[in-house]
Amino acid sequence: MDKLTIIKVGGKVVENTESMNAFLDHFTRISSHKILVHGGGRTATEMAAKLGIESEMVDGRRITGKSMLEVVTMVYGGLVNKKIVAGLQARSCNAIGLTGADLNLISAVKRPVGEIDYGYVGDIDDVNSREIRMLIEENVVPVVAPLTHDGKGNLLNTNADTIASELAIELANYFNVFLFYCFDKKGVLTDHEDENSIIYDLDAEKYNHFKQTGTISTGMIPKLDNGFRAKQSGVKEVLITNTENIATGRGTRLI
Amino acid sequence: MDKLTIIKVGGKVVENTESMNAFLDHFTRISSHKILVHGGGRTATEMAAKLGIESEMVDGRRITGKSMLEVVTMVYGGLVNKKIVAGLQARSCNAIGLTGADLNLISAVKRPVGEIDYGYVGDIDDVNSREIRMLIEENVVPVVAPLTHDGKGNLLNTNADTIASELAIELANYFNVFLFYCFDKKGVLTDHEDENSIIYDLDAEKYNHFKQTGTISTGMIPKLDNGFRAKQSGVKEVLITNTENIATGRGTRLI
Repeated sequence: MDKLTIIKVGGKVVENTESMNAFLDHFTRISSHKILVHGGGRTATEMAAKLGIESEMVDGRRITGKSMLEVVTMVYGGLVNKKIVAGLQARSCNAIGLTGADLNLISAVKRPVGEIDYGYVGDIDDVNSREIRMLIEENVVPVVAPLTHDGKGNLLNTNADTIASELAIELANYFNVFLFYCFDKKGVLTDHEDENSIIYDLDAEKYNHFKQTGTISTGMIPKLDNGFRAKQSGVKEVLITNTENIATGRGTRLI
Repeated sequence: MDKLTIIKVGGKVVENTESMNAFLDHFTRISSHKILVHGGGRTATEMAAKLGIESEMVDGRRITGKSMLEVVTMVYGGLVNKKIVAGLQARSCNAIGLTGADLNLISAVKRPVGEIDYGYVGDIDDVNSREIRMLIEENVVPVVAPLTHDGKGNLLNTNADTIASELAIELANYFNVFLFYCFDKKGVLTDHEDENSIIYDLDAEKYNHFKQTGTISTGMIPKLDNGFRAKQSGVKEVLITNTENIATGRGTRLI
């Protein structure tokens, strides 16, 4: 099977022109087939504020009312996604921007209202990889925005880390998938202010221990839960790292 | 050669939920291969106003400064495009949203500054149909937003009528292309307040005459210039009509 590298890159990296350009340079140099999954939360929050719409977060998840859905559709699917695509094309990387609605790539169900009504937030139901595989085989590079659809005409706001892991799991049936979660630290740290406290190899047991003792910051937990799920579902390698280490492969490896 | 229907639909049709749904129903029923090219100017103007950005038009063309480029990228590439894609997927039509940057579909050059500085407006340089043909052959339906790119990382605002005709001309090398310009009238009218004044067959000579006498409204002229260019460059049929007549093929036929 061919190698496929899936990179999830956080908002902080792609929402600043300088760090985005540095990242796109690194990304372009990946020689295997590749997919980029991006966030864009900060830009969405800023744009919403300019439009007089307040951002409300619960445990790092955005409450997505009707007008906020319009904002994230514009910002994730339009502004951030197309800037990345144009940036990659300028580097002769044949990118295509996609949401989960395009090619029916990722269908989801609107999260049921429990204690909290998240609004138009989608929990992934199914990944259809048929057309995206065809594109990958033609050396096209999909750039995926964190939006899915419900098959009834509604777009849904969906966590980018989860999109990356679900794509990785589905595509592991056809490729040797390497999944990289890129953010602004070298890896998972036991002291989030000290980059030397990086955990190089993290297994489920150690992870559970760190979770119980509160050693790992709460923001990392959904990322790591997604990462372990991918690792246990046929994805060859899962790495948490920063953009500079995409090439070296240094960072926190889930084992 | 297979038949390929390319429909350009104006902002008025897709920016209202009811008329958009009616249009998507009609569009879905087209049995040949198909492409949809859409506008979105009214939504862009509204969104810009909400953000405190003034819209400035010269001869129906939008002056596109840096912040207006962000607005049209969000609105055309994100909001309008993805709503259409999700709406088509809900009708089991396997749509994919594209701008000219995606797949390097349409490259353009920033319009040189003459008497007027249009800003980030692109004049089409080249259409690369390689990957889009592959998608069409797989019964995927491209939905194209009026944005191109300059190959240096910049998106450019580009007239949707021109995008439709340039796509039609390029794809006429591979398909029997039928190009439909859909708007809110039954066709080209000699009296724009009387739908019975429709011109059914319009040739270049009659067109020039109508242009000189001022019979045809100025807003129609760029559309018709594009249409005639397509007709003279291998496109099988060019029709100006409303959405209800996509199926009947009634309207103004360029001959």
